[in-house]
Amino acid sequence: MQKRLLALAAAGLLATPALAQTAEKTDAAALAKIKDEGMNRSKVMETAFYLTDVCGPRLAGSEGLSRANAWTKKRLTDYGLTNANIEPWGDFGRGWDIDKSYVAMTAPYYHAMIGVPKAWTPSTPGSLRKQVVVVKATTEADLDKYKGQLRDKIVLLPVAAPLQPSFEPDAKRLSAEDLQKLADAPAATAAAANRPATDPAMAERMATMRAQRELRTKVSAMLMSEGAAAVLSAGRGTDGTVFTTNGAPYAADAKPVLPELEMSSEDQLRLIRLAEAGIPVEIEMETKTRFQTQDLKGYNVVAEIPGTDKKLKSEVVMLGGHLDSWHSATGATDNAAGCAVMMEAVRILKASGLKPRRTIRIALWGEEEQGLHGSRNYVKNHFADPATMQLKPDHEKLAAYFNLDNGAGKIRGIYAQGNEAVKPIFTAWLQPFADLGATTVTSRNTGSTDHVAFDAVGLPGFQFIQDGLDYFARTHHSNQDTYDRLVADDLKQASVVVASFVYNAAMRDQKLPRKPLPTPAKPQ
Amino acid sequence: MQKRLLALAAAGLLATPALAQTAEKTDAAALAKIKDEGMNRSKVMETAFYLTDVCGPRLAGSEGLSRANAWTKKRLTDYGLTNANIEPWGDFGRGWDIDKSYVAMTAPYYHAMIGVPKAWTPSTPGSLRKQVVVVKATTEADLDKYKGQLRDKIVLLPVAAPLQPSFEPDAKRLSAEDLQKLADAPAATAAAANRPATDPAMAERMATMRAQRELRTKVSAMLMSEGAAAVLSAGRGTDGTVFTTNGAPYAADAKPVLPELEMSSEDQLRLIRLAEAGIPVEIEMETKTRFQTQDLKGYNVVAEIPGTDKKLKSEVVMLGGHLDSWHSATGATDNAAGCAVMMEAVRILKASGLKPRRTIRIALWGEEEQGLHGSRNYVKNHFADPATMQLKPDHEKLAAYFNLDNGAGKIRGIYAQGNEAVKPIFTAWLQPFADLGATTVTSRNTGSTDHVAFDAVGLPGFQFIQDGLDYFARTHHSNQDTYDRLVADDLKQASVVVASFVYNAAMRDQKLPRKPLPTPAKPQ
Repeated sequence: MQKRLLALAAAGLLATPALAQTAEKTDAAALAKIKDEGMNRSKVMETAFYLTDVCGPRLAGSEGLSRANAWTKKRLTDYGLTNANIEPWGDFGRGWDIDKSYVAMTAPYYHAMIGVPKAWTPSTPGSLRKQVVVVKATTEADLDKYKGQLRDKIVLLPVAAPLQPSFEPDAKRLSAEDLQKLADAPAATAAAANRPATDPAMAERMATMRAQRELRTKVSAMLMSEGAAAVLSAGRGTDGTVFTTNGAPYAADAKPVLPELEMSSEDQLRLIRLAEAGIPVEIEMETKTRFQTQDLKGYNVVAEIPGTDKKLKSEVVMLGGHLDSWHSATGATDNAAGCAVMMEAVRILKASGLKPRRTIRIALWGEEEQGLHGSRNYVKNHFADPATMQLKPDHEKLAAYFNLDNGAGKIRGIYAQGNEAVKPIFTAWLQPFADLGATTVTSRNTGSTDHVAFDAVGLPGFQFIQDGLDYFARTHHSNQDTYDRLVADDLKQASVVVASFVYNAAMRDQKLPRKPLPTPAKPQ
Repeated sequence: MQKRLLALAAAGLLATPALAQTAEKTDAAALAKIKDEGMNRSKVMETAFYLTDVCGPRLAGSEGLSRANAWTKKRLTDYGLTNANIEPWGDFGRGWDIDKSYVAMTAPYYHAMIGVPKAWTPSTPGSLRKQVVVVKATTEADLDKYKGQLRDKIVLLPVAAPLQPSFEPDAKRLSAEDLQKLADAPAATAAAANRPATDPAMAERMATMRAQRELRTKVSAMLMSEGAAAVLSAGRGTDGTVFTTNGAPYAADAKPVLPELEMSSEDQLRLIRLAEAGIPVEIEMETKTRFQTQDLKGYNVVAEIPGTDKKLKSEVVMLGGHLDSWHSATGATDNAAGCAVMMEAVRILKASGLKPRRTIRIALWGEEEQGLHGSRNYVKNHFADPATMQLKPDHEKLAAYFNLDNGAGKIRGIYAQGNEAVKPIFTAWLQPFADLGATTVTSRNTGSTDHVAFDAVGLPGFQFIQDGLDYFARTHHSNQDTYDRLVADDLKQASVVVASFVYNAAMRDQKLPRKPLPTPAKPQ
């Protein structure tokens, strides 16, 4: 889809609307203070260390997320923010933590393996030592041939494709050409450009994924009813990297499933090759997981720098990122990085002694990975319900929301999210950061994270463009998403860019322009 | 060194000797048979599967190497080779196998870690759960401050450097420019080009390495005498990949050491960051290793295709690679690949029904990783002792030795090892493989593997130039050196190139020309 639009644009078939060049003012002295504080006395890596190494994995409802909620509330208070609060957003479901995970091949010879319990899967009954069976099913009918053969066995599910050597680097930065393509994205169709349903290839992929999920549900039910002992399934990833997800619903009344590990591709492929060659394979495994059912609520952490302008302090500029992560690492790039940058931005603003006219509110969202629950419910509780588009009084008061959640790379610009009127404003705000590589305003929208909750009710919610580094190749939802992936210079840069955007939005005479209100998702 | 020579060559300061173009004949019909068998009925991946997945890790003296010795002897016999034999080369030392390896952080929260027992290190006394201490020492004196603090602790040794995002691809092939540089390497200085002692930078690196090794020996002794429980040391590698080595001598009378794991860099760095921030860290670990002391001998597997020419069949063309590997994976690229190609080459020659004039002998070497023990001792037992250069009768009978041990990439040419007289011969032999990417004869030598043992006593031993793929970035001595890294098309190509070289050497009227005999290492 993007390619077709670019071709049309190149052929002059899409008119680019002339944008009015407003005289957007910024405060050079304030910006200098922000840069000085953020570049010379940065705490962003210290914050990231606490969020990742000290708090640990921060799965929705887990002890790690609870530690992070408590630590961030305290740290924001220490920075001098007010009204710091761990605010419940509603009912989430069960928490889940890992207490032990061990898996090895014990026949035909010993080999310790790399595997990660899928989130919300149960413990094994102690340490198991079992024979394995490979189950290959592309249709429900394929399952019949395994009936009666799975009792007390460890089931291997296939890996999608054999591995290939990697001739592409893991880490990349956006090139000048990449940025130009973003800048050139046509305005009129920008909002439509990322809508999955309008792209037939995307629609087909979605349909395939749905079919695979449905088949997997049937496979799971069959394995359970046949009395299999556990499941080893294929994790995406190579070289010891395992990408991971959930293996069962987090709902308090979810149906039981088998213990299941997502395996390193290399380990899973070896097991499958041996088993398919008729060589008996035996696995030893022990998983201890623990469900937390006493508190089923989800939470966001919020805190404020109060505004100083009598008229404007009731208006709010928000910034945020999600604090929860997946469970197999410490969610450094997804999204301790974003949270550390947002916390650093408010620290910079406090430490610089600047006096924002509007109130600035940071929000560290919970349960983003399970469907943007924290931000969606916050928006519903405070601003509007997208189902009805009944607006609450605070809907009028939100000047802007800024989000960061695309890894640990520095900021290269911002997505205007189809809001043409903000483009000249953001262009002016980016100007002082050209030397730091942040230059590009694109009409395009971007999704899959918390600004979407704001955008969905007509609030001006934005996310920044970031260098990808190794986010997609290596860290996004993987067991390798650790503090080691963070690049200090990138996070310092991002912190000063965010601090200045937030400050500019808090000082501007007008709130940021909005797009027309969307129609209710479910009209009453 | 190489750069300086290239500059001289570019400036026309090094004369390139004119090589006599001998009319080297090859047999196109035989070559066509070899190509057909090797490309259309290849068994190389099946062989590689047995060597890696089925036999398992093949550390010197281990059960896996013993399985591989037995399997290759049988398979070579099945191919129709004669005199297949698991031939002892002399005394090696103790075998060593892993029966269990588990390591996790249990405080401040649970995190299953990736670590590999260093070869020849002992078991832990059951499952340990201990506090950790970071020991940083750049000089022996630094150790004093840890005295009295290490009893019953798990010691963390530092990681060399923090990690960086990887902007280079893991896998690479040799470019036309790379090959041209090899082809242009000047003849006269080729033998000197790789000699470490002539390169001051290399000499300095070697001195640093020696100093580090000596310090490490002192650290180990101190940890043992202070009563530490175990050691977690830094493995090179990222993303879940751990490069590994030995942690103790394999000699039957080696001094005891502590249990030691080489850790994934990310896991080790997290532990160190937490401990250095004053946050108590607790580790749970269990290592069960087993020493084999009943048979201290080392072995090579040899087998032959007898020659058919009455005069020449007493002469021998050898080909080989080392069968042993490191212990944390299945040694696919180092060096099951080389062994599978060599076994495939002799299978192709048998299956093609060709009648080599000279005898062809394959050797799969043991204990290469500990210092080329298998090949060096084979050469000493059969051909000559480099210390005295007293030649045995068979020294005269060896027509050539061909080796493969630089990963799983296809063959791009061959190192003439400073033997200028073989260059036109090899150039002619490569001609039919230009379309398969094998083109280059370089004067340069290459070391660190088994042809060196032949070269050292003046025998014509050669190794092929291969595409590196991800050998150095990812697989060489790592826990990721598995069957998955092998590329079938590359190994098929290598098999037919080797088969044709071996066949040509077996058919040629003369043995390959030799370099002058070296002087004895220890003159009598």
